[in-house]
Amino acid sequence: MPYVTVKMLEGRTDEQKKALVEKVTAAVSETVNAPKENITVFIEEMSKNHYAVGGVRKSDE
Amino acid sequence: MPYVTVKMLEGRTDEQKKALVEKVTAAVSETVNAPKENITVFIEEMSKNHYAVGGVRKSDE
Amino acid sequence: MPYVTVKMLEGRTDEQKKALVEKVTAAVSETVNAPKENITVFIEEMSKNHYAVGGVRKSDE
Amino acid sequence: MPYVTVKMLEGRTDEQKKALVEKVTAAVSETVNAPKENITVFIEEMSKNHYAVGGVRKSDE
Amino acid sequence: MPYVTVKMLEGRTDEQKKALVEKVTAAVSETVNAPKENITVFIEEMSKNHYAVGGVRKSDE
Amino acid sequence: MPYVTVKMLEGRTDEQKKALVEKVTAAVSETVNAPKENITVFIEEMSKNHYAVGGVRKSDE
Repeated sequence: MPYVTVKMLEGRTDEQKKALVEKVTAAVSETVNAPKENITVFIEEMSKNHYAVGGVRKSDE
Repeated sequence: MPYVTVKMLEGRTDEQKKALVEKVTAAVSETVNAPKENITVFIEEMSKNHYAVGGVRKSDE
Repeated sequence: MPYVTVKMLEGRTDEQKKALVEKVTAAVSETVNAPKENITVFIEEMSKNHYAVGGVRKSDE
Repeated sequence: MPYVTVKMLEGRTDEQKKALVEKVTAAVSETVNAPKENITVFIEEMSKNHYAVGGVRKSDE
Repeated sequence: MPYVTVKMLEGRTDEQKKALVEKVTAAVSETVNAPKENITVFIEEMSKNHYAVGGVRKSDE
Repeated sequence: MPYVTVKMLEGRTDEQKKALVEKVTAAVSETVNAPKENITVFIEEMSKNHYAVGGVRKSDE
């Protein structure tokens, strides 16, 4: 605990994901006073045709 | 805000997904009095072997 | 199927939630060709201190 | 109702997933007194580069 | 890993929830060959006015 | 985009939550190259009787 889920469009590099997970874990650990080894991060990717703001999908913009 | 997630079996056409996102956004906007541009929709697809009702997966029916 | 989750700030009236569920169900049924009785809607409410855009919670604006 | 989501690393066989869904449905039915046909199970798989404990992804261990 | 979420209407007793968590953990452990100590279970409760099937909330039936 | 959900046991102070949201937003912005104003954070709290590791709820330990 805590469990963190980051949902974002696909397309980030593996290096970006690795850094994302490290920095988010550090940010959570520091602010809620939890040991890093207790923190879990999940990345969830979505494609542009499955994500819409204002009723318009990113694939239709 | 609001954030809407629609989880469904894979297999819908791109036109159906486009219409889904438009109509759901309109329905939410109209009923909770939120401007359309503030509404986000995510589509999540699942495969038949990852979805079960009554203990039986759709792929096993 | 489908399963729809609507996540929004608390504060909507019961009438708004009732209408939301009806209209969203109709929008999904019409666009993905699913019978209404197969559609499930979940409402999830969040408080202003648990929701942030741009690093600032709604309760801190 | 209830709705059960099992999130796990990819790699389980189809037989394991079939058994998982059957046994979890039985466990829920028995303990919360719900008929099996009312219980839904979703499986969500994640890849090793999208899952981290302690800030380190499984793909980087 | 795995992470299991059970979403259900509020109203179950504490004894039912305790048994639910035990039995679901055992079912997952047995079928996907994961040690029990690696399995996490979350319970999420919903109220009758936040849950609808067929466009009708449980609170309106 | 991205959308970040932090799920944790209840009990953190409001100051901790405020800092959590700020630091996590910064960490995401920096690592995936997204402007802060596009990043959304949701906090979800759970109670000790709704969270179990190894089949034992935190409220039963």
